[in-house]
Amino acid sequence: MQKPSLPRGTRDFGPEQMVKRNFIFDTIRRTFQKYGFQPLETPTLENLSVLMGKYGEEGDQLLFKVLNSGNFLDKIETADVEEGYKKLTPKIAEKGLRYDLTVPFARYVVMNRGELTFPFKRYQLQPVWRADRPQKGRYREFYQCDADIVGTDSLLCETEIVAMLHEIFAGLSINDFTIKINNRKILSGIAEVIGVAGKEAALFVAIDKLDKVGKEKVEEELSEKGLSDASIKKLQPLFAPMTSNRETFENLKDWLQNSQIGMKGVQELETLWRMIRTMGISDKKIQLDITLARGLSYYTGAIFEVKAGGVQIGSISGGGRYDNLTAAFGVPNLSGVGISLGVDRIYDVMEELQLFPENQSVTTKLLFANFDAAGETYSLPLLQKARQAGINAELYPESSKLKKQLDYADRKKIPFVVLIGSEEIASGQLTLKNMTTGEQQKVTAEALIDLLK
Amino acid sequence: MQKPSLPRGTRDFGPEQMVKRNFIFDTIRRTFQKYGFQPLETPTLENLSVLMGKYGEEGDQLLFKVLNSGNFLDKIETADVEEGYKKLTPKIAEKGLRYDLTVPFARYVVMNRGELTFPFKRYQLQPVWRADRPQKGRYREFYQCDADIVGTDSLLCETEIVAMLHEIFAGLSINDFTIKINNRKILSGIAEVIGVAGKEAALFVAIDKLDKVGKEKVEEELSEKGLSDASIKKLQPLFAPMTSNRETFENLKDWLQNSQIGMKGVQELETLWRMIRTMGISDKKIQLDITLARGLSYYTGAIFEVKAGGVQIGSISGGGRYDNLTAAFGVPNLSGVGISLGVDRIYDVMEELQLFPENQSVTTKLLFANFDAAGETYSLPLLQKARQAGINAELYPESSKLKKQLDYADRKKIPFVVLIGSEEIASGQLTLKNMTTGEQQKVTAEALIDLLK
Repeated sequence: MQKPSLPRGTRDFGPEQMVKRNFIFDTIRRTFQKYGFQPLETPTLENLSVLMGKYGEEGDQLLFKVLNSGNFLDKIETADVEEGYKKLTPKIAEKGLRYDLTVPFARYVVMNRGELTFPFKRYQLQPVWRADRPQKGRYREFYQCDADIVGTDSLLCETEIVAMLHEIFAGLSINDFTIKINNRKILSGIAEVIGVAGKEAALFVAIDKLDKVGKEKVEEELSEKGLSDASIKKLQPLFAPMTSNRETFENLKDWLQNSQIGMKGVQELETLWRMIRTMGISDKKIQLDITLARGLSYYTGAIFEVKAGGVQIGSISGGGRYDNLTAAFGVPNLSGVGISLGVDRIYDVMEELQLFPENQSVTTKLLFANFDAAGETYSLPLLQKARQAGINAELYPESSKLKKQLDYADRKKIPFVVLIGSEEIASGQLTLKNMTTGEQQKVTAEALIDLLK
Repeated sequence: MQKPSLPRGTRDFGPEQMVKRNFIFDTIRRTFQKYGFQPLETPTLENLSVLMGKYGEEGDQLLFKVLNSGNFLDKIETADVEEGYKKLTPKIAEKGLRYDLTVPFARYVVMNRGELTFPFKRYQLQPVWRADRPQKGRYREFYQCDADIVGTDSLLCETEIVAMLHEIFAGLSINDFTIKINNRKILSGIAEVIGVAGKEAALFVAIDKLDKVGKEKVEEELSEKGLSDASIKKLQPLFAPMTSNRETFENLKDWLQNSQIGMKGVQELETLWRMIRTMGISDKKIQLDITLARGLSYYTGAIFEVKAGGVQIGSISGGGRYDNLTAAFGVPNLSGVGISLGVDRIYDVMEELQLFPENQSVTTKLLFANFDAAGETYSLPLLQKARQAGINAELYPESSKLKKQLDYADRKKIPFVVLIGSEEIASGQLTLKNMTTGEQQKVTAEALIDLLK
């Protein structure tokens, strides 16, 4: 007999974890709805033709691929096998597992664009799968929570995202966080003014690591990648310690004054800052971070990233504006902006900082102890009355020893137990035990329900 | 450019469908919680060693199998490929997709039995995947909603399941339904009294089709399977038209009087009926159906099935008691009973009978129309105040033509639009348009929020 096990990088969520996870999901969902986003769910299985080529070469490798059902070898020749697994894969696997929520969303928009109302605002809370090497805080199956608006390039959308992030983290009691914001156009402007307009990707892959490896290593990498000393020298303002947003804006306008696209980026962010203030939100938790690049490849405007303070955990949210997400499916020039929240990391932050509210367990409020058949018969209609009054209630299914039943209530965190023995049946005065204080009191059936409902 | 498409048998759920589906999920979840069940989620990916052999040979074929990541051909020889796809599969695929919620639950119980509080009551609402041929009402990716109690053989659990089913369908306004109930022991008793104790499986596979093919075809099939004419003759009481539950019970006691196991089954169901009545639930919607067999292979006690009236849709719920579910994972004799609800069929029933409540859409309640920058600036703080008052609200992101904005509100079913032009800003009297009646009224900002919150 083999002991059953879970695949690496996957997890079961038992009752206690589920309650905490649902608290996070509910808070996010409620906020998304309050801002006019509507729910969408896409299937776990997508055609690999939809997924492949959208996440870079590494992403293609990390996609979980599903073996065609039936005889998948039917049309396979020995020669196909000899060509190696990469060429064989598309011949025996047509489908894969959802890798993120963005590409399926783009597919959905393209397939349904005739019926959708634009600007289309949707949210999506679903698991995704990546064949990454599992490690602490990195799973192969994990949830993403995304909200996107497509069909408008209005900066109001960016403003709304910043407001939503504030509301979500307030709802979760995560009060120490920083929303880092940049703009792809600023990054392009920097590339322009230091004279490496064609080498943006290499530049920003290196800069993105600044936090982790420091200035010297970044400069080393840039040099290896062929940036001239002159270019690297011109890059120095990027390494200036961050002070206030106002100062960063001023320095940036000075630095990028000869780059049209760079100045456009600055202007967009100044508008964003102004709208955020107009909304009544202080910019204390917002930081203009010109070293923020994130999946630079498809962002075209604002770039967002959120870090929680007081913990050593990576970013808990990220997103940005993209202008060509649906282009891969034949619909160009549909601008959108979105934000993605990492539930698993948010969970870890809240655990570490002990931010989960107490008494959140979805549990029974009232347990009817079970002494004998007579008590059971007496309890059954009462049990239903309690439930009809909205009280989560259960009757212990067997007439076991009272200690065992109280232990059950204790372990399940049930706050009240009602004891119904022959004496209680005769008098109509039931014994209600408060499991928190240990106190017992006599109550009638009616009073019991009034008390707990 | 390839047009994107969905894999056969999978679906997107857009905003309107999501709202309806969530109404079903919420009703089921709330009821499960009221009866003391706690949430559990297991991963989509399970090891195939856990799944294979649990669903019969057909089930093994219908499992979606996930190709090992990396070079899955690494240790594969030409000889392995020549042995055919069935033998090759386990060498290139270690993981599969969840096929139902029962086997992962059994695995979870076995892996966590040291920490769980028994009797353990859990519910689970998650999708499952089957490589079945897609057809109307049958999908390859669909949701199941299960509630199970393990660790007790008390008939109170069966009673609770019947009560829960009543509450769930009442909550969904499905008032015309029948809960068919049988007991595996009665089926064994019937096999005993007609003298085919060893041939139960064949007998009940045939009987299960009675509804569809009629008595003659069933008798034909039984004859082909080697039942003697004498046995088939003794089976006649089974074909008697069903009248009242009381009469069925009486006839059954007469018929099975010489079968100990059969009489045990009758006695269990009589107890169940008594407890249901004691709970205050009428047996009008409950039918003792001795031809009900369902996945006979693992049920050992009560068997349940629910059909909705007024529609031609298969069963919307099914379940039963099992005594050996965890035996496959090395833990024998853990008795449990469970019920599974088919969300997709329930959805179809409710659509066909038009049972979904109106105005359930999760949508914006108030749209701020956007005329110009001044109006936008005026609206932003007000927008946040509305949200702080709990009103789902949005500001149209662009100063488009009013017609376009009203059309947006209309299509998104937003009931109120507030118009803020230069006149409104000057006077502080905003124009509130009721999209249902078309009426307009003047309100102050404070009155607007009071009115809608």
